[in-house]
Amino acid sequence: MDIETYLKEKRELIDSFLKSYFTIPTEPTILHEAIKYSLFAGGKRIRPILALTSYEACGGEPKDILPHASALELIHTYSLIHDDLPSMDNDDLRRGKPTSHKIFGEAIAILAGDALLTEAFLMLSNMEVQSLKFKVQNEKFKMQKCENSFPYISHHVSRITYDTILRVIHEVALAAGVHGMVAGQAMDISSDNSKPDKDILNFIHLHKTAALITASVRMGGILSNIEEKKLKALTEYGKKIGLAFQIVDDILDIEGSAEVLGKKTGSDIKMNKMTYPALYGIEESRQEANDLISDAIDSLQIFYSDADYLRKIALYILKRRV
Amino acid sequence: MDIETYLKEKRELIDSFLKSYFTIPTEPTILHEAIKYSLFAGGKRIRPILALTSYEACGGEPKDILPHASALELIHTYSLIHDDLPSMDNDDLRRGKPTSHKIFGEAIAILAGDALLTEAFLMLSNMEVQSLKFKVQNEKFKMQKCENSFPYISHHVSRITYDTILRVIHEVALAAGVHGMVAGQAMDISSDNSKPDKDILNFIHLHKTAALITASVRMGGILSNIEEKKLKALTEYGKKIGLAFQIVDDILDIEGSAEVLGKKTGSDIKMNKMTYPALYGIEESRQEANDLISDAIDSLQIFYSDADYLRKIALYILKRRV
Repeated sequence: MDIETYLKEKRELIDSFLKSYFTIPTEPTILHEAIKYSLFAGGKRIRPILALTSYEACGGEPKDILPHASALELIHTYSLIHDDLPSMDNDDLRRGKPTSHKIFGEAIAILAGDALLTEAFLMLSNMEVQSLKFKVQNEKFKMQKCENSFPYISHHVSRITYDTILRVIHEVALAAGVHGMVAGQAMDISSDNSKPDKDILNFIHLHKTAALITASVRMGGILSNIEEKKLKALTEYGKKIGLAFQIVDDILDIEGSAEVLGKKTGSDIKMNKMTYPALYGIEESRQEANDLISDAIDSLQIFYSDADYLRKIALYILKRRV
Repeated sequence: MDIETYLKEKRELIDSFLKSYFTIPTEPTILHEAIKYSLFAGGKRIRPILALTSYEACGGEPKDILPHASALELIHTYSLIHDDLPSMDNDDLRRGKPTSHKIFGEAIAILAGDALLTEAFLMLSNMEVQSLKFKVQNEKFKMQKCENSFPYISHHVSRITYDTILRVIHEVALAAGVHGMVAGQAMDISSDNSKPDKDILNFIHLHKTAALITASVRMGGILSNIEEKKLKALTEYGKKIGLAFQIVDDILDIEGSAEVLGKKTGSDIKMNKMTYPALYGIEESRQEANDLISDAIDSLQIFYSDADYLRKIALYILKRRV
């Protein structure tokens, strides 16, 4: 299967799962609408796809970990909503549509982000994945019901164990919070307009982008209970494609088409952001992204052909235009 | 032991744990400072205390669940930071000190909240509680190290199992997110200035306050693996003290001393908030709080004297002035 078709298939799988998960409206409706607005704005679903593909490379059936993989997209979406806020990057446009706070106001945008982040951990900690049914525990509590079925979980007994799920939750929280993504965004915000610095730029890219991408790739390995050597290989791969992903993002902000990207370009330069092209120039940045992707592919040797789609995704990240 | 001394002892236990947990600074420093600023602003620690006391009522050693209980305080603190933001309740003062965004700016305040929420799930999913040591998994990843020791976990083998921890994570996420606290805050924000309505008021109080308080009480029971009948009793107790807690809060906003409370009073009326006193008057609200606390105490009969401190906490909630 060519990589475009593969990505499309996986994206559709994730989208169907997320749509079925968020079918039943919760009160207040405006919060539910805001969550769906950002979640279904046409994201590439690259983080959940990486988790599914990595799980597949380890011999698993991707559908078995759809809830865990999809939780990554909730975290990514929350981070976009909060990053776009007026007090942060103050962006009006995202994926060709007005940003959440432009439609729903700042308060609901902040709360939609908070809700998505929390819901990710609800999704990750769902213990009834194996038994096909997702049920809310405290119905007695007269809280909102949210009985969503998970139609995509396959019927065979899953290999997934409680301890591996806990480990995944731990790693995702590590990658998303004060030791990962939030630290990256805080550093990014704090270093606007400051003198370009390689260490700070590296810190921002590693924490803001590579941390969650690495956790996504590792998720597939951890839930498969693979040997440490293979997990190490996945970690190397994740970190390198994560960095490359952000460098390509920086380049697209300069060279990309605003129409294709669905957001303003040139905003990094305008906001005096610390980026790879700003520090190293376009050519050197492109070379660095190339080298990282090449290293990422090399690091997967231990998987032989099982990791072919991970390799193809690495190349796709390098060549993407959106 | 009288209840004041009991609460003080437990509060000190939680504070020591949290202080040791956040000892090692993370980058960027401003984010770490913002987290500590709000977390150590003199909170009552009522949610973690409820979890410890409920665990004790079920025969457990409270110190064993310190990380899980303390995670509740991170969630509560994040919710205060976000609720105080200019686009939400726009509060300048909290616990007698300027609110987070007044000191650190809106962007860092939002990120500090995001970080605290995420860190709560990191704390909850820590699998090495039993082995005394908390270690970061992806050191290879060259992310920030955060090796904090958990000095308060007792040495005996804990009864806590992976599946009960997962269940707790699930319930906390349910109580904190779009099915609980965030829904309550969104409804609160959306119904400012609208016609007082009993159902909406009940929705706000149940979701915004009672949900997380109920989850706190249930945490002690779930981690103890107690029988369903006892868990049901804890749930009833939690829900009722949770509602009473919010009604007392509403009354204090009218009758309390701004100096003692450390925040502006009268802001509910000024912002035309839907509150118990606004809908039922002060006297009826006081009676409702009394009845709820009395019911809460009654619901604990199955525990005999084991739940005496839970009963005393219920009475304390009714009589609190701060």
